[in-house]
Amino acid sequence: MSEYPTIKDIQEAKKRISPYIHHTPILRCEKMESRFGCEIYFKPETLQVTGAFKLRGALNKALSLPEDVRKRGLIATSSGNHAQGLAYAAKMLGVPAIIVIPADAPKLKIENTRALGAEVVLYAGNTAERWKLVYKMAEENGYVPVHAFEDPMVMAGQGTIGIEILEDLKDVDTVIVPMGGGGLISGISTAIKETNPNVRVIGAEPAMTPKYYTSRLKGKYTALPDAYTVADGLRLSVPGKNPYPIIEKYVDEIITVSDDNIKEAMRMIARDAKLIAEPASAICIGVLLEGKLKVREGEKVCSVLSGGNWDLEELAEIYSEKK
Amino acid sequence: MSEYPTIKDIQEAKKRISPYIHHTPILRCEKMESRFGCEIYFKPETLQVTGAFKLRGALNKALSLPEDVRKRGLIATSSGNHAQGLAYAAKMLGVPAIIVIPADAPKLKIENTRALGAEVVLYAGNTAERWKLVYKMAEENGYVPVHAFEDPMVMAGQGTIGIEILEDLKDVDTVIVPMGGGGLISGISTAIKETNPNVRVIGAEPAMTPKYYTSRLKGKYTALPDAYTVADGLRLSVPGKNPYPIIEKYVDEIITVSDDNIKEAMRMIARDAKLIAEPASAICIGVLLEGKLKVREGEKVCSVLSGGNWDLEELAEIYSEKK
Repeated sequence: MSEYPTIKDIQEAKKRISPYIHHTPILRCEKMESRFGCEIYFKPETLQVTGAFKLRGALNKALSLPEDVRKRGLIATSSGNHAQGLAYAAKMLGVPAIIVIPADAPKLKIENTRALGAEVVLYAGNTAERWKLVYKMAEENGYVPVHAFEDPMVMAGQGTIGIEILEDLKDVDTVIVPMGGGGLISGISTAIKETNPNVRVIGAEPAMTPKYYTSRLKGKYTALPDAYTVADGLRLSVPGKNPYPIIEKYVDEIITVSDDNIKEAMRMIARDAKLIAEPASAICIGVLLEGKLKVREGEKVCSVLSGGNWDLEELAEIYSEKK
Repeated sequence: MSEYPTIKDIQEAKKRISPYIHHTPILRCEKMESRFGCEIYFKPETLQVTGAFKLRGALNKALSLPEDVRKRGLIATSSGNHAQGLAYAAKMLGVPAIIVIPADAPKLKIENTRALGAEVVLYAGNTAERWKLVYKMAEENGYVPVHAFEDPMVMAGQGTIGIEILEDLKDVDTVIVPMGGGGLISGISTAIKETNPNVRVIGAEPAMTPKYYTSRLKGKYTALPDAYTVADGLRLSVPGKNPYPIIEKYVDEIITVSDDNIKEAMRMIARDAKLIAEPASAICIGVLLEGKLKVREGEKVCSVLSGGNWDLEELAEIYSEKK
């Protein structure tokens, strides 16, 4: 397999993972429509088994391995949804998962990962250093590294969301997708553009970490310094090596969203759609709040709510704030 | 039509209202399953157009009227989901809605009802007094009164939820339904028991207002004194006249739930299912938290989440509390 997935890879991923995951529904939210001047739909991966889309990619990778290889164990680093997705996939298939977690990660995330049966390795290093450790441990122990966004099989798994959107909302016009590492939007945009190039794919990136936005503006791969955004799932300042060319090829527009609009979008999604969205997924409605996306009346706009895993007390804090 | 709906009435209601409402999905929540020892499913009417099931009954009533009668206007009293459901139905059909609201109701609810185009009449009286006013105004002006739970056409509309559950979760074993006035559970239990009597129907009632529970215990219709429960949608101390015999006939068991368990259920539904449930719908998971319902391993238990309309700041308060 090459460094990027094709529609065929994504179709195969769908067959592979379908028995294990939720085919999440498409939900229409009329309450938001007069405000935004178009039809509003959600693809809520918040309702996925693990509360986030990451299970799709992890499962596709795990299931595509020969059994004797898979049995050696799957390894990755993440303190969030990828860790849980991979741990869950491994548990489901009865193979070991080893997750390298930042030493200063919230205790709850560590416990959640352990509760899924994964072996947790705490390591005080930044993301790049942790991945180095992952690859070293993989080589020494025969584990299979499962990269959250560089691995084409992982991207193909995430791309199954694109196929499901096209199946369930046949006349969709525009799909908005959050951009963190870029694995999600790479898979979804490939699925959509290689099926129906007329559907617009919009990337949503935090204004605080606009790595893909800046790369496109400059016309070249651009790494930015680390920065804070409330959307912790998107708190990456370096574009993915493999996702970058896919995004340049298939994503029509990249729109940056302020942290204030991300939080306002969380409240709006709670109030009007009755769904709990973590900041990294609320960013899609943030795009509309920014007012930078042109839509026409009756346009069907579908936002991918990538996940809903957020500490309830922190959620309560954001819900009780005013804009 | 008699005072109770039949399965045929409910099937007709489904044909009548289907073009206007969401056929809400069935969502499985694996995360809760080890805790409760059975399979957990939701029928989330929180995702209904108005954020609650009430639209179904109001629409069925409105659509069943001859056009010249409907055009005279629909009238009811409610400060909550029934008001919004009826106002929305009237707006959709281009007919007037008149809603009598308690004079001390939260401003937001009054505004929401007005925003849907309804004429709001403020009246300082208890529920019984307000219904008296409704029937008086109906007689004087030719309006059609739409009772939230006594009207068999309204019950038939709510019953469509039961048909959808049986369609989408074919081997469901047990359905848990909140009990306020009793219209929802009358409709759903009729739909279920007249299709498949082997499916258990469980009523969930606040321990603070156990009118149906007490009536069953005493073997006769029993009105209780007014009392407070956090589940404002279920804050009724008098059983419905028409729902009572239906409930006695079709509801297998009535289980009371403390306010503490209702609030804990709200947190659990947010944390594990990523759904926003108002207290009156979270009560279904409260039934399981009470530990009074016997379930066997692998049993498919479906909770009807009746609505999600709750002030975001009050929600935040409950989310930040510990049990």
